[in-house]
Amino acid sequence: MQKRLQSLPLKNIAIHDNYWSRYINTVPAGLSYQWDALNDRLPDAEKSYCMHNFKVAAGLEEGEFGGRCFQDSDVAKWLEGVAYYLETNCDPELEKIADEAIEIIGKAQQDDGYLDTYFIVAEPDKRWTNLRDWHELYCAGHFIEAAVAYYNSTGKDRLLKIICRYADLICNTIGKEEGKIHGYPGHPEIELALVKLYRVTGEKRYLDLAQYFIDERGQRPVYFDMEKSRSDPQAAVDPQIFNHTYYQVHAPIREQDTAEGHAVRNAYLYTGVADVAFETGDETLLKTCETIFDNIAEKRMYITGSIGSAANGERFSTDYDLPNHSSYSESCASIALAMFAKRMLEIKRDAKYADVMENALYNTVLAGISLEGNRFFYVNPLEVIPDVDEKNLDLRHVKTERQKWFGCACCPPNIIRTLASLGQYIYSADDENLFVNLYVSNETHCKIGDRDVTVSVRTKYPYGSGIEIKVKTDSDDPFTLALRLPKHTFLNRMTVDDAPAHEVLEKGYLKLKRNWKGETVVRILLDLPVLRVYANPKVRADIGKVALVKGPVVYCLEEADNGTNLGGFELPDDAVLHEEYDNTLFGGTMTITAEGVKVVDDGNASLYRTTPPKKTKAAMKFVPYCYWNNRGKGEMLVWVRRETK
Amino acid sequence: MQKRLQSLPLKNIAIHDNYWSRYINTVPAGLSYQWDALNDRLPDAEKSYCMHNFKVAAGLEEGEFGGRCFQDSDVAKWLEGVAYYLETNCDPELEKIADEAIEIIGKAQQDDGYLDTYFIVAEPDKRWTNLRDWHELYCAGHFIEAAVAYYNSTGKDRLLKIICRYADLICNTIGKEEGKIHGYPGHPEIELALVKLYRVTGEKRYLDLAQYFIDERGQRPVYFDMEKSRSDPQAAVDPQIFNHTYYQVHAPIREQDTAEGHAVRNAYLYTGVADVAFETGDETLLKTCETIFDNIAEKRMYITGSIGSAANGERFSTDYDLPNHSSYSESCASIALAMFAKRMLEIKRDAKYADVMENALYNTVLAGISLEGNRFFYVNPLEVIPDVDEKNLDLRHVKTERQKWFGCACCPPNIIRTLASLGQYIYSADDENLFVNLYVSNETHCKIGDRDVTVSVRTKYPYGSGIEIKVKTDSDDPFTLALRLPKHTFLNRMTVDDAPAHEVLEKGYLKLKRNWKGETVVRILLDLPVLRVYANPKVRADIGKVALVKGPVVYCLEEADNGTNLGGFELPDDAVLHEEYDNTLFGGTMTITAEGVKVVDDGNASLYRTTPPKKTKAAMKFVPYCYWNNRGKGEMLVWVRRETK
Repeated sequence: MQKRLQSLPLKNIAIHDNYWSRYINTVPAGLSYQWDALNDRLPDAEKSYCMHNFKVAAGLEEGEFGGRCFQDSDVAKWLEGVAYYLETNCDPELEKIADEAIEIIGKAQQDDGYLDTYFIVAEPDKRWTNLRDWHELYCAGHFIEAAVAYYNSTGKDRLLKIICRYADLICNTIGKEEGKIHGYPGHPEIELALVKLYRVTGEKRYLDLAQYFIDERGQRPVYFDMEKSRSDPQAAVDPQIFNHTYYQVHAPIREQDTAEGHAVRNAYLYTGVADVAFETGDETLLKTCETIFDNIAEKRMYITGSIGSAANGERFSTDYDLPNHSSYSESCASIALAMFAKRMLEIKRDAKYADVMENALYNTVLAGISLEGNRFFYVNPLEVIPDVDEKNLDLRHVKTERQKWFGCACCPPNIIRTLASLGQYIYSADDENLFVNLYVSNETHCKIGDRDVTVSVRTKYPYGSGIEIKVKTDSDDPFTLALRLPKHTFLNRMTVDDAPAHEVLEKGYLKLKRNWKGETVVRILLDLPVLRVYANPKVRADIGKVALVKGPVVYCLEEADNGTNLGGFELPDDAVLHEEYDNTLFGGTMTITAEGVKVVDDGNASLYRTTPPKKTKAAMKFVPYCYWNNRGKGEMLVWVRRETK
Repeated sequence: MQKRLQSLPLKNIAIHDNYWSRYINTVPAGLSYQWDALNDRLPDAEKSYCMHNFKVAAGLEEGEFGGRCFQDSDVAKWLEGVAYYLETNCDPELEKIADEAIEIIGKAQQDDGYLDTYFIVAEPDKRWTNLRDWHELYCAGHFIEAAVAYYNSTGKDRLLKIICRYADLICNTIGKEEGKIHGYPGHPEIELALVKLYRVTGEKRYLDLAQYFIDERGQRPVYFDMEKSRSDPQAAVDPQIFNHTYYQVHAPIREQDTAEGHAVRNAYLYTGVADVAFETGDETLLKTCETIFDNIAEKRMYITGSIGSAANGERFSTDYDLPNHSSYSESCASIALAMFAKRMLEIKRDAKYADVMENALYNTVLAGISLEGNRFFYVNPLEVIPDVDEKNLDLRHVKTERQKWFGCACCPPNIIRTLASLGQYIYSADDENLFVNLYVSNETHCKIGDRDVTVSVRTKYPYGSGIEIKVKTDSDDPFTLALRLPKHTFLNRMTVDDAPAHEVLEKGYLKLKRNWKGETVVRILLDLPVLRVYANPKVRADIGKVALVKGPVVYCLEEADNGTNLGGFELPDDAVLHEEYDNTLFGGTMTITAEGVKVVDDGNASLYRTTPPKKTKAAMKFVPYCYWNNRGKGEMLVWVRRETK
């Protein structure tokens, strides 16, 4: 297998971007806010109990375990976010808080290395007895990710050592060898984490365990069916929802050919599968990843890069079933999808993966957080009607306003760690290539092989269509700069130091191989029009409808601009779409306006009538989907009915 | 209050109708089939345990209680269906079975009159401790209805006596007097039943109890909140779903102004409220009924006469929220709505109530049963896509094929008792008026005051537009014949003995007051066109769509006629709608065909694309909604997208 591309170290990437910085700048306040949440200091928010649980486990506080069995993972994701933030920012106070938290975590660790406060505090005799439901391995996975990130960021190995002891305990407890538990996690996540741990420590046993989890998953008889401990309330949960497919154990991984089950679990799992496929050189496994990815991207993904169309089970349902109003579309699932896409991109070097990664990041992941960084969506449908969502209990998973916190708070720290690590998604490199995946303004120092290279990207993308990439190096050893041509954009002009570039387009990347010695300015001018996008006609929910995009950005109608009954609008096929940059809105955004048509309330109160509703011309204003609900509660709609002529 | 109209006795109504007889003729086989179900003799069907439970309670069999706590009610509804059937048919064998069942029921009755097998067998110490969840009063209500019907039909008072003993126990146990339980049923039904019992026995205590239930319901503090016994699994059920609104206790009845909560409970409740309002002359209560009815009919009812748009809670949601695909639309709810409408019609003499009654009966109630009478729908959405409904767990309440039976089998016997008693809905009369509400071919002998009158109706309505009503009487005392002008029809011509009639149109009824001595032939020729119907533009699910109706019959597209992806069709506004009667289909039906437009699979496999889907001309064939899924599993769609020009 070809060497994979890798992210550049975050510490050398300085982002100052028109689209992203407004969010990234909320990270320090967000981390502080979330630390308050983890310590139950947010007024009127659901309690977290996270740090309380660790303190009880550490013998520092009296009390019961609080929250869900996977509560620990919120601390882990927060620490991972802190790590990424500290990698690019100096914040001794925050680092001190994190170090103190790590000390508490260390004190909570048991003599044998075990570290899961739910079991330490609440169920000391039940360790490893219910891998399906109790999230032990999931929490361990998140702590491994945190430890690796914290070590990479700060150079401090305290958490890494703690976690390695725990990981070693897991390696000694679960695996194919006789006497070990022949299980795997109900909620995949640890697979990708173990590969990270393997990469940072070089200890192959961590990779082996990840591989074991993937090889064993879905084998017959299904391990979960043989687990004895089903005495907790979750054991009684609905078997129609929590079936083999839900847990991705309906078939061995290599025989799975559609994306099934809980969307977050699925995408975390296949992120790990891609990692293991690469590390072990397993082409069959990689082929499975490609099949699953294509099934998601071409049959089971919303235009906003979200997945999981069924609320019951937070699951994939079936091909082309993408209801807009009842969708689950969890923020975490889009983060996981971006991770999966990133792995596939690094292995396959194909921009189709970057397109999905960009789509998820630019739309659903950002929709999950308010512009202030302190309110969150867990569920991200493409249509919201507050009166209905609040009164029709089939839609009660839909929150009509971002929330302060959640009892099950997986999404907020997940979004923060993603924002804090955005740099990981911008570039991919190996010794001979520097891939620019995302056009985010930044300045970066990196090594391409032995070459010291400085790259700076300046752009107003996705609202502006010009991109300037300045490359500086003292090396005269040629390497390739690969610039993605984003989906829904078209190359207008590309120059190198103002002369026409002689780029080669390969798998969606514009490639320039040359001697970069000195300073070189590459300029790309994209055609970045507002486009009307139509869904495959097999998508029942979108038939006869159109969505507007500009590059990766999906637009929506909001009540704040367009009044109520957004479903009453039609966008004429021949309507001119005006773009206008509004400096004052959402910290600056491109808006789209058009002369549309809307049904009129003609005063006929009848529920059913034989005269068709009247229509009238009506101005329509579209704003990026990710910004919706930053102006109070109201309707929102992505897919708008077409008026064909 | 004006005297209410009343149904004519079933025994004198002989139905031989083009539209209904195909269903009514299945009643004897259906009763036999259901008797097998109640005795657990159906292979591969969910077990009922009904008669087993009664036999155990009667000491005739050993065993545990089986099924749900409201299982008894299925026997009651079956007996009620038998009663109606026996009123118009001689079937000594069936009557013997019913009599034997009644004997078993009698043996199951406890010394103090108590009669609920769940409590007798499974929870002897818990009687009346959980009125909210345990359906004791609901089951009692159905037995009261059965007893009244069986007495009216056969003249045998064995069951009536049994039930009166039980009702007396209830009267002595629950009520406003000190020492009694100050509660009311979690599932209303007994209110309407007690009024029936009052009418047949003349015992005012039964009416008083019904009135008490209605007066007390929703008063503060809410009785259900004070019930001590919440130890059963249902006590742990989701409080978001099972809240005050669910049980219609969110406000005192007289202060309720929207139709809320569980749809079946709501409509049974308001049927009883209407009965009590009439019997007590309570105008405020009647006004409440009018308000609730209007809220249903003008804001919360599907075009097919179904109600309950949310599956979670089988509930009403909010005004104009009528999703077609995820709808609950329980068969029982439409039966209950027809009952409520019948009461309102009898009191208010306004055809708007008959319109809703007819709509529910002709569409959703019939959709609930197969043409063979032995397969049933519980849930009746207006759009079905089998692949999605079977794989998206948010839609798992939707069955894509009618079922043999249900563990919770309220609907099948409810449909049968409705078919067996259809005659109750055809006519309403008082001493001076004979209202013809439904145009069902039949011959009826009745008393209008002291006059012996024979009425025969011959019509092919709703497929044919001519109606002939022959009135025979020896009396020369004038009375009024009131013939409904059905919704979606228009009066073309009306004659009396071939001369122009001098009718008066009043509240939707064409009224003829005359001396009918001898034989008189009234002929109505309706304009009964296929009509395009549009929903109020506030109904988000139906914007831009059209449904076809012919009189009361709502049409749909089925995959059997139109292939898959029915959502891909558009019906052009100017498409000519051809009616054709097909003698061979569904036992004879009017079909509608049109030249429509359909999106084409253009071979582009992309999920999202910038070229709009292509369309092509495509033949469309509509069949009545009630017949859908009588040709195997497939898609179905009522609301079709319009092609406007």
